[in-house]
Amino acid sequence: MRSLRRPESYHCGTAAAMDVIDGKWKIVILWALGERPHRFGELRRTLDGVSEKVLASHLREMEEDGLVHREDFDEVPPRVEYSLTPLGISLNQALEPLADWGERHVIGRLPTA
Amino acid sequence: MRSLRRPESYHCGTAAAMDVIDGKWKIVILWALGERPHRFGELRRTLDGVSEKVLASHLREMEEDGLVHREDFDEVPPRVEYSLTPLGISLNQALEPLADWGERHVIGRLPTA
Repeated sequence: MRSLRRPESYHCGTAAAMDVIDGKWKIVILWALGERPHRFGELRRTLDGVSEKVLASHLREMEEDGLVHREDFDEVPPRVEYSLTPLGISLNQALEPLADWGERHVIGRLPTA
Repeated sequence: MRSLRRPESYHCGTAAAMDVIDGKWKIVILWALGERPHRFGELRRTLDGVSEKVLASHLREMEEDGLVHREDFDEVPPRVEYSLTPLGISLNQALEPLADWGERHVIGRLPTA
């Protein structure tokens, strides 16, 4: 975990976890990499609207947080793949009940205008 | 649910749920009201640092989202209590695995400097 966080600043584990997730893009990155490993360009297409700079910085933070593994295959042309670490997989699993809740109670209840 | 949300804007249920949770204060409000009903002043003391205006607006949004029930006891001096609705309780339950994850992997791994 990045060292700027301080345990005494958290009221509860959820807030601590949220600090790692931190915004909607990281959730979508977790979800996409939970399906299968992705290359940078693929991820960018999946995260419709994210800038290259923001995606790169999110991936770097998630690597520092031990959630994402970056593999450089040292090929020509260059091939770099991102995948989830066991810690990233465990975070994805911990998010599953929340995903179900959101699907049932937020998406499911919205007017389909 | 407040009507400004659009289902097609969500990549997944987690992002939809996050839109309802929306920031660290709401998580702490959910957590506090999950323990027991609170009056406004009590909540404000629990959420150390929140302004009266922000707390009032969060509670109003959570009421509109069906997460929080506001009960005015019509007493002198006035007594108003906030509690979780069944939907709020279900969101709290859906957050439990994430809370455990945060406690184990974020709070538990930080240097205790």
